[in-house]
Order: sequence, then C-alpha cells, then structure tokens
Amino acid sequence: MIKKLVLHPDRLFSSDEKVRNVARALYLKVKDLPIISPHGHTDPSWFSQNIAFENATELLIKPDHYVFRMLYSQGIALEDLGISTTDVSISQSMAVETDSRKIWHILAKNYYLFRGTPSRMWLDTVFVEVFGLDVVLCEDTADYYYDTINAALATDAFKPRALFERFKIECLSTTESPLNDLGDHKAINDCDWNGRIISAYRPDPVIDPEFEGFVSAVNYFGELTGEDTSTFSGYLAAHRKRRAYFKATGVTSTDHGHPTAKTADLTKPEIEALYAIVISGKATSAQAELFRAHMLTEMAAMSIDDGLVMQLHPGVSRNHNQDVFKRFGRDKGADIPVQTSYVEQLKPLLDKYGADPEFTLILFTLDETSYSRELAPLVGHYPCLRLGPPWWFHDSPEGMRRFRQQTTETAGFYNTVGFNDDTRAFLSIPARHDVARRMDCNWLAELVCDHRLELDEAEEIAVELAYKLAKKAYKL
Amino acid sequence: MIKKLVLHPDRLFSSDEKVRNVARALYLKVKDLPIISPHGHTDPSWFSQNIAFENATELLIKPDHYVFRMLYSQGIALEDLGISTTDVSISQSMAVETDSRKIWHILAKNYYLFRGTPSRMWLDTVFVEVFGLDVVLCEDTADYYYDTINAALATDAFKPRALFERFKIECLSTTESPLNDLGDHKAINDCDWNGRIISAYRPDPVIDPEFEGFVSAVNYFGELTGEDTSTFSGYLAAHRKRRAYFKATGVTSTDHGHPTAKTADLTKPEIEALYAIVISGKATSAQAELFRAHMLTEMAAMSIDDGLVMQLHPGVSRNHNQDVFKRFGRDKGADIPVQTSYVEQLKPLLDKYGADPEFTLILFTLDETSYSRELAPLVGHYPCLRLGPPWWFHDSPEGMRRFRQQTTETAGFYNTVGFNDDTRAFLSIPARHDVARRMDCNWLAELVCDHRLELDEAEEIAVELAYKLAKKAYKL
Amino acid sequence: MIKKLVLHPDRLFSSDEKVRNVARALYLKVKDLPIISPHGHTDPSWFSQNIAFENATELLIKPDHYVFRMLYSQGIALEDLGISTTDVSISQSMAVETDSRKIWHILAKNYYLFRGTPSRMWLDTVFVEVFGLDVVLCEDTADYYYDTINAALATDAFKPRALFERFKIECLSTTESPLNDLGDHKAINDCDWNGRIISAYRPDPVIDPEFEGFVSAVNYFGELTGEDTSTFSGYLAAHRKRRAYFKATGVTSTDHGHPTAKTADLTKPEIEALYAIVISGKATSAQAELFRAHMLTEMAAMSIDDGLVMQLHPGVSRNHNQDVFKRFGRDKGADIPVQTSYVEQLKPLLDKYGADPEFTLILFTLDETSYSRELAPLVGHYPCLRLGPPWWFHDSPEGMRRFRQQTTETAGFYNTVGFNDDTRAFLSIPARHDVARRMDCNWLAELVCDHRLELDEAEEIAVELAYKLAKKAYKL
Repeated sequence: MIKKLVLHPDRLFSSDEKVRNVARALYLKVKDLPIISPHGHTDPSWFSQNIAFENATELLIKPDHYVFRMLYSQGIALEDLGISTTDVSISQSMAVETDSRKIWHILAKNYYLFRGTPSRMWLDTVFVEVFGLDVVLCEDTADYYYDTINAALATDAFKPRALFERFKIECLSTTESPLNDLGDHKAINDCDWNGRIISAYRPDPVIDPEFEGFVSAVNYFGELTGEDTSTFSGYLAAHRKRRAYFKATGVTSTDHGHPTAKTADLTKPEIEALYAIVISGKATSAQAELFRAHMLTEMAAMSIDDGLVMQLHPGVSRNHNQDVFKRFGRDKGADIPVQTSYVEQLKPLLDKYGADPEFTLILFTLDETSYSRELAPLVGHYPCLRLGPPWWFHDSPEGMRRFRQQTTETAGFYNTVGFNDDTRAFLSIPARHDVARRMDCNWLAELVCDHRLELDEAEEIAVELAYKLAKKAYKL
Repeated sequence: MIKKLVLHPDRLFSSDEKVRNVARALYLKVKDLPIISPHGHTDPSWFSQNIAFENATELLIKPDHYVFRMLYSQGIALEDLGISTTDVSISQSMAVETDSRKIWHILAKNYYLFRGTPSRMWLDTVFVEVFGLDVVLCEDTADYYYDTINAALATDAFKPRALFERFKIECLSTTESPLNDLGDHKAINDCDWNGRIISAYRPDPVIDPEFEGFVSAVNYFGELTGEDTSTFSGYLAAHRKRRAYFKATGVTSTDHGHPTAKTADLTKPEIEALYAIVISGKATSAQAELFRAHMLTEMAAMSIDDGLVMQLHPGVSRNHNQDVFKRFGRDKGADIPVQTSYVEQLKPLLDKYGADPEFTLILFTLDETSYSRELAPLVGHYPCLRLGPPWWFHDSPEGMRRFRQQTTETAGFYNTVGFNDDTRAFLSIPARHDVARRMDCNWLAELVCDHRLELDEAEEIAVELAYKLAKKAYKL
Repeated sequence: MIKKLVLHPDRLFSSDEKVRNVARALYLKVKDLPIISPHGHTDPSWFSQNIAFENATELLIKPDHYVFRMLYSQGIALEDLGISTTDVSISQSMAVETDSRKIWHILAKNYYLFRGTPSRMWLDTVFVEVFGLDVVLCEDTADYYYDTINAALATDAFKPRALFERFKIECLSTTESPLNDLGDHKAINDCDWNGRIISAYRPDPVIDPEFEGFVSAVNYFGELTGEDTSTFSGYLAAHRKRRAYFKATGVTSTDHGHPTAKTADLTKPEIEALYAIVISGKATSAQAELFRAHMLTEMAAMSIDDGLVMQLHPGVSRNHNQDVFKRFGRDKGADIPVQTSYVEQLKPLLDKYGADPEFTLILFTLDETSYSRELAPLVGHYPCLRLGPPWWFHDSPEGMRRFRQQTTETAGFYNTVGFNDDTRAFLSIPARHDVARRMDCNWLAELVCDHRLELDEAEEIAVELAYKLAKKAYKL
C-alpha cells in the first residue's frame, strides 16, 4: 500500500492550542532567515568542483552513519550497504554490495526502523522539500524514489552550489586538519561564485598522540610550515603559522575533539620533556592525555592572540566496535558517548585564561547530565565560555527540549550560541535547522504561555537563537 | 469518611484532548492482548501446587518490598509488619507481629503515604479489578477490605492457576538458581494444566564470589552435575550441563544481577589462577569483581552456543541498610542503585562476541543517566544488544516516560524489548503491564499529535511494545 | 518604549485548561499560608537593628550573586557593579564603582539577559508586589525605578521588621558559625518584637581543615567554650557546648556544606591521630576529606543527643574562578556543582545511626542525577533520612518540576520536607516560596488530571508541601 507523504506545517509544535499558536507566530519570524552553519563536516570539494551528486545511495545512505548504524543494529551487514572495507584480507569485490539500487531497496524495506528518530524526520523533509516526493518510502516506492532522486541529481538545479543557494546558507563551515592545504576553500574564494564556505582549524591529528599516524603527521606539520617540530617551541610555531594560514582564508574558529575535557598548564621543562616522549611515538595513554590537556591551554593562548573562537567537543569513546573498526575503519557509527566532567578538568585552562575578555571557548557535550550540573553554571559565570547546542545524538527534538529545559534557568539564552548541524549530510542541513527553529519556538511559546516571558521578548530571542547568536559567537 | 474508589478509564493519558483521544484509540488496540512476562520473580510453587493464597497481608504486604520499605521509611518497624527476623538472638515470637489483620490495619492507616507512587496505582488496580472493591482503603474500610479479600482468596476462582488464566498471561518466567531442580516447573509441564511457566537461569549464587555461601554452592554445583568444579573447565562444564537442563524445561534466557556491568576476557592461565582463588573463599573484592566480569564473557559464549538470551542487570548496592540486613536478611527494600557505566565495561565482551549474529544481550539499568548517553547509542549500533524496559524503581509512569523520551531518538523502538514486570507480587502483574501499555500509548500519541509519527505507524508500534517485541527478543 | 509590567495570576500554571483550573484551585488553598523559611542566609542584624535598607543597588544587586554572575558572564566587570575587591594591591577607590544609581542603570540596560531565569521572575515579583511598580525595568525606566524603590525604603513600612510581617513569615532561619555569639538573635529574642528568627549551627569553619583560617578558628573555638581544643575530646566537647548554646536561643538544626557526602567512622586512635594533624594545619587534601567525613558521623551522634535536625549540602566546587577569588573573595557566583554520590559515601554514618528513631538527616543535592538514582531510593527507605527541596540553581520552575517528576514515585511526598529558599536576598523570599507553591500545585494538578491522585488528596498534599512538612521536619 502506497501512503501519501506530507510534512505537517505544525510538526514539532505542542498539541496544546495556545502554545501551538504562539509557536507558529514565532516560527513565522524565523523560518526564512538565512542559515548560519558554523560547525560541520561537509566536503568542500563539492562546492569547489560543483559536480553533480552520483545517486541516492551515495548521497543519502553511505555518508550518513546515523542511517547505516540503525540498519546495522538490526542485523544488516555493512557490506550489504556498500560500506567499503579497509581490510585488505577481504576480497572487496565479492563482499561489498556495489549495486546502489539494491542498497536503496534495503533502506526502503527497513525504513520503519527509523520511526521516532530524527533521521526519519530529516530524510522525509529532504524527500518532500528537496525532491518534491509525495509518497512514503517503502518497498513499493523504492524504485520510484531512486529514479526520481537520481534524475533530479543529474540536473543543474541539484548541483552543490545551486542547492547551497536554494538552502539560503549564509555561511557554511567545514572542518580540516592543519595538514590540509585548503585548496578547495581557496578555489571557492577565488572563483566568481559568492557562496561563503570556510574551514575550521581541527588539529586533533597533530595534537592527539593516539591518533593514527600522529608521529608522521607531526613531521609533515614541520615540513609544511618550515618549523622544527622536533622541539616544542618549533611545534608551537608551526601551529601559529598554520592557524594564520587558515585565518587568511576566512577561518574564524578552531575545533577540538578530545576524549575528555581535561586541561593542564605544565611548566616549560615539563612540557618539553613530555613533547619529546610523544613525538617518539612512545607515550603511554596517561602521557597522551596529559599532552592533549596541555595543548588545549596552548590553543587557548593562541586564540587570545589571533582571535579564533575555540570549540571543545569531549566525551566520546571512538570506534568502540572492534570488529567494525578493523574491517571498515573510523566513523562507522560506533562512537559511543561516555561520562564527561568539566568543572575540575577545565580549571587549569580557566585559571590561566578565564578572565581574558578576548577569549571565547564554546563547550559541547554528549553527556546531558552536565547541562544543569556543570555547563549552565559555568557558562552562566565565565565571560569567555559559551554553551554549544545539543550535538550529535542530541541533535533531535527531545534532545533540544532537554537542552533548553536544563540550561535556560541558569545560563539564560545569551550564553548559548544558537544552533549548528555538525553534519556530513549536506541535504539534511535545512531540515536540521528547521527542527531547531521549531523546537526553540515551541520552548519559547511554552514560556510565553505560562507567563514566564512576554511575546515581544520571545520574538527577539527566536531571532537570536535562529541566526544572530551564532553569527556573534563565531565572529561571522 | 468512606470514599468511592474508581479507576478512571483515561488514567495516565494526557489531559490534552487531542493526545488523549489518540492514546485512547491506541490503547484499545493493545489493552486485551495477552501478557508476556519474560522476567519476574513469582514463586513457581504457587502454580505447581495451586493452593489458595493465605490472606491479604501474606499476599499483598509481606512479599512486596515496595510496600514495606515506604512504611519503614516513615518509622514503622519491620517487626510490626510481620517481617520475619533472621537474627536468632531475638525471640521472634515476642518481637514480630503475627496478627495479619493488625498488619493490614497499619497499611490502611498509612495508605496516604503511597500517594503519587506506582504501588498505590497497582494496589488500587488490584483492589478494583481483582477483588471488585469500590471504596478507598483507609482505617474505616480496613476490616471490610481484609474480610472481602480473604473471602475471595478462599474460593477456586482466586487460586493461582485461575488468576493466571484470568490475567491472560501467555507466558510467565520465574528466576531460579542453577542449584534449583526446577521441580515446580517440571510438575507444571507434566500436569494437565496448560499455563506456560518457565524459569530463567540465574547463576549469581555460583558466579558471584561475594554471594553468601558461594564456596559450598560451587561444591554442590559439582555434585549436582557430576562435574569436577575444583577446576575451571569442570566448572564451565557444570554451567553447560545445567543450562541444558534448564533449557530442556522450556527456559529461553539467563539473568545476571551484577554490581557493575564490568566484563573481562582473561587468558586461560589467568582465569584458572583466579578461579583457584575464588573457590578457596579468599578472593578480595577486586578479584571477585574480575571473576564476575570474566564469567559474563563466558556466559555470552554459552549463549551463542545454546541460544539462551542473556540479560544483565547491573548497578545496585545490595542490602545497604546494615541493621536491616543483620536482623531481616536480603531483599528487604534496602537495595539502592548506584552509578553505572556500560561503554568501557562491556567492551571486552563486545570485542569478543559483539559481532555474532546468534547472540542477544538485553541490558537493564537503574541509572537513568545512561539511557541517552550510553545505552541508546550502544543498542542503536550493536546487532547483539537490546535495551530492557525501565526496571524496578523506574517501573512507573514517569520512569517509563523518561525511558521513551531519552532512548527513542537514538535507539528507535525496535531495539527495545517491550515491557517486563520483574515482580514477586503476582497480583500486580496485569496492573503493571496496563501501566506500561497506557504510558507507551500516550507517548506514541504525543508523537502522532506533533506529527512525528503517523497514526497507522503508532498502531503497529503499540502492538510491538505491548506484545510482539518481548516474544521476539526472548524467543518465546 | 516603556512597557507595562503585570504579574499574570496564572503564571507557572500549565497552559492546558484542565490542569490550570485544578492548579488554580489548589493554589488558592496555599497561597496565603505563612512562610516557613527553615534554611537561609539573611543577615540577622537587619532584624535586630531594624535599620532601613540603603538603596536599590545595595539591596537588590550587590548581595545577590545570581544577579551579578549573569552580568559578569556577559563581560561586565564586577568592579563596575560595585563589588568590593579584597585585593589590597588594587586602589579600590579608583577601581570600584561607588555610584549606586550608575550600577542600577547597568542592571536596567542588561535586564534582558535574565529572560527565562528565576532571577527575572523573583525581581519582577519584588518590583510589583513589594514596590508597586507597574512598568518593565529598562534603561528608560531605570531612574524611575531607582527613585521609587529608594523612596519606599526610607519609610517605616519598608524596614526589615515591617517587611518580615508583611511577608507573613512565621519563622526565618539564618545560618551562623559556632564562633558567632548570636548577639543579633538574642537581641531579637529579648526585644518586644515577636518575629521568630533563629539561627542554624553551621560548623564548617571549625570542621573543614581547608577553610581559610581553620587553625585559628579552632583555637578560638576552645577559648570561647573553655574547652581544650588541642585534644579531640576537648574539640568534641566544644561542639557540644556550642550546640547547646545555639539550641538555647531557639535553634533547631545544623547545616553542613561539605565538598562531598563522604562519611567515616574512625576508631578513637585513628581520629585522635588525624585530629592532631589537622589542627597542625598540615593536613593533606585527603586527610582533610577524611576528617570532614568522620565529623559528619560525630555530628549525627550529637544530633541524636540534642535533637538538632542535621542538614547536608554536598557537591560544590567553591570559588572556581581563581581570578575572581583572588580579587573579590568568597561567594561571588563562582561556586560550580560537581558530581555527587551518596550511596556508598553515606554508608558509614548510616551503618552507625541509620536505625536511630531520634535522628533526622535532610539531604540536598545540586547533582540532579542523584534524585531518581540515589536520593529517592535512600529517603524512601531509611527512617532518619529526608529529602531537601531543589536548591540553589535548581530553586527554579524547571528545577522544581524535575525534582517532583524524579523523586515522587520512589520517595512519595511525605519523605520530602517542603520548600526552603536558602537565600541572602530577603525581598525575594515571598517570591521564591510563591514559585514553589505554584509549581507544586501544578504538579499535583497534573497528577489529578491524569487520574493518579484525587482532588481532595491533592489539596491535603499542597498544604503539606507549602507549610506543614517543613515545620515537622525542622521541628518548628
């Protein structure tokens, strides 16, 4: 049976009529505002090269670990989804499905698994709003979907730049390693297209001694910058040069994905001795952690100097599934959050730079218990701290609801930074921002309806949350 | 003043009319489905012997630690509630109340203490639906209650098997130690009554070196199985035999109540050396923990072999009240949850067996902070993992609400396993399942009303949550 | 643009009409009940001297760290808010703003920052209900506010005792160190004014070896009591005497603000050896923690003897902002909550005194994760334990909502102790109690509307939560 697919105009608004009416009115003020996407992981070559996306499977399934982790959790092999193995002992041509239409059928058949998840909402929004589809995805409509999407993708209107404009994205940030030459970004800057696409300085590969290939990455970091990275001062100089290089292309932020929020402020002899160990490749796990901790404090110092806004995303156990990691590599949906604490861990950095009026550090978490206990109290006090939006698994309606419920009373609205999508899935960007705008409007409507806020204030705040706060926090 | 007691047909549904109407419609589809109770602690002898329950106090107060813990918390002595002391130095006949009617009056007088708790809701449901009572329990109605309930219990219609049928229980699982001969279960299987009552293999007494009487339990485990439990391989063989013995009676699952979720995968020499220590009765606390951790991995291996579904319930500090434990023994309402983490602790087991398609491990928690941070991300990824329902203190309306709010977006519905009651209080089983069905229908109704789910999808999911998922997960 | 300021009569009640109507009806029963404020930090000299408050800034901004922490978080210097520096190297007259009107303008200009916070609600309530203001605070109305408030404060009707009576406070507790002579309290007791203002025994300065000036405080403690505080037995005797001194002035409780909930029960030789170290001023951090832990158990023993109700407030990292602490001292809005666990930490104390029917220990938390996991299970079992209200950052509508949602089902209502304000901001006391009464009525209304509670029961409970439970728990 084929069912009609309709996006209800009131979706995510309260079923209570009073709240819903206020939410609607607020949403009208923000729904068409341009998108600020100051933190994400799209591929800049899409925009520098502006080549058409290949097909529905390559665009919507393979790059989206939200999608394939759910299918995998119900026993569907990653090979059957066309995910490439990294294990050379496997004869890939035999093991990995290459028929994109067949893979699309697997999604269609199992689409019911996504009921209640944000992926379902984002995908349906993409289907309706980007591709104009009007029936529900299921086995019977799988081919119709596949053909319709692919036909659209082959047209100019669906090339990356055209979609960027259609999505009204005012600024999109990607994330690159210091070793990246930012060739795509420079090409975009230099061409006659006006889309604003910037990078963010993400130095994990040269800061985290446990990152695969760390030692050779540091060596190459030295070559690239002409600095002697065999010494700690040379290593710091390499960072400074590379940050300047990034900044010159329009970059306004750095991004740090550490296992914990631990910071440290070692003495010069201490850090020099530790650096010698980490670049020998022989750091213990504790030494690696201490090095990362100290480097956050160094990155804060550099942010004060060059004005780049610093972002910290701690609290994930990466590549938790050993079998998947061995056979398919990183970023295959097996990163699992762990408990994260901020209060004692950030203290060394804050003791040193917390009072500096030039400094901005945006904190993210996957451990929601820290919202009301630690993060809202911290950002509601320290002038340098701001609270990032609900992230990753919490980029979801209930995640956003809990975020506002648990942070607003202590941190207010103005110590938060609006929304960012953090996504690799380009087409989902408008859908994700729309969810955030709807949920924020609904939260504001609740405050208005139980008389904690006046309507005119809510209207002002809605615009801040949808647009202004992100521009300000990220200096865009 | 005597007040009428009525169960409102819309209880637990939202006061919002739109949501309530959808919830009602969904509930109609599931309210009369048979009960699957795949995890609980009722006494199988009730059903093998089918003897009438003694009286209201023996049936509804003494076995229910939810009930007597609340009375105790407000200063009522356990002796006054007829709870038997285990301390031989106390002359029991003097100290412990034996007049069941008097004990029933204590409950009646203090029934107001349960306002807002699930115990109140379950008891009222039992009063109305099982015994046809129509006034509120209070001092003035205590004798009427006591006499009415006792009169009913003396009739055939209130004997255990008759109630089992009246409750429409399709399958009920109890929980037994490997040392149990399952005589009651075999008697039930062999008799002409058709009720399906199975056990679950709960090996804590022979796996936990800190369990009272562990060493002699392991010796008896050897005698019972004819295996040499002085060696680790003999000990494993004893488990295998006993699991097969359980399975032959219809058992489909094992159940593990560990202090933490820690797992380990020791080498053969390591575990053999550790086993020698633990059966000497001289294990330190850390050695006991490591032994339990390794044994979870062994149990996973056996589950893969024999197909029994594995359940893990970590995170309780047992018998926390030293005075109560000394005088009254285990399971007297003094088990208190503690922080529990799963991500690193389960890794050794998951590294070894996480990719096996034949394996099912159902995880429970009493630490709700792990729902959105750890458990939903884990079960939303690993094919072998499923998420058990809110348990124990969280077998409650708000507990169920938080469970769905915090897990659905990451794990979906199909990585959960429906509801189980985990109770010793036989009469409360339909009431508990009814609460779960109402709360799930209300949650689905909210999703329908803010347009995150279509009504026909919600109808399908409601049936899954009330019935199908439990059957599938527990292989019933 | 000047906007009207109106407090909506239905503020904080659900927008759902059914729930709102019930909430209103319940609120009518409690809104005019006297205020019991059994835990707070107002200055007793206000009431002993009954001198007019100085001006709006001295009354409403400078003592309220909720207010200035938010302004500080957005880059406003504490000096500009007139907060006195403690750093003698700074020429204070130059650095610190002394023009109170100018400081008031800063608040007015930045009042929008408080949107969505309880401070905003409390301040607006004070503006309307205490001062009769009817326009919103903003730059344009700043002078009008400042002049109106100051004019009122100069009149007899706004002197501390007059406000105390107008606020219908039946009993107000302040908090004092054992070294305080309670001169203000004795003066109040001895004068012809009938206001009941008592202290609470807060021994942190002589119990916490890490408190500034601990060693000399203990010496003075000895002088004051005539006991030899160079020995542990003399030190305990000093506590006993001082508790008796406090009790004689009407005190009914003690209050303990420890970093953690850790308790210990050392042997006599162990604690005597440890005491010798701590009074030498050379305790390590671990020794200081152990001493505090043991002293909680001693304080419990004394509570059993003298009947003072014991309160424990763990889980704060005090003076987290090093720069602010150095320049401005304690209590400047930089105390940040940390993870807190109770189950294992309280066990030594509970093993010793948990079964004593004469003992009451009221537990507070800033770590909301402990509500459903640890605190509700503990207070729902131990007769000596009671659960304090949501505190500090959680003295807020959402904080109160989560408190009831997460504790009621396991602890019920009768193991909680009603509301207390814990404030230094005297004028906010009625506003805070009003928020608590509204939120509790709304929670009860929700239970009534989804048929978990009858209306007559909700009415009884509303009165307990607003008035009776606090009187009973604090023996007032």
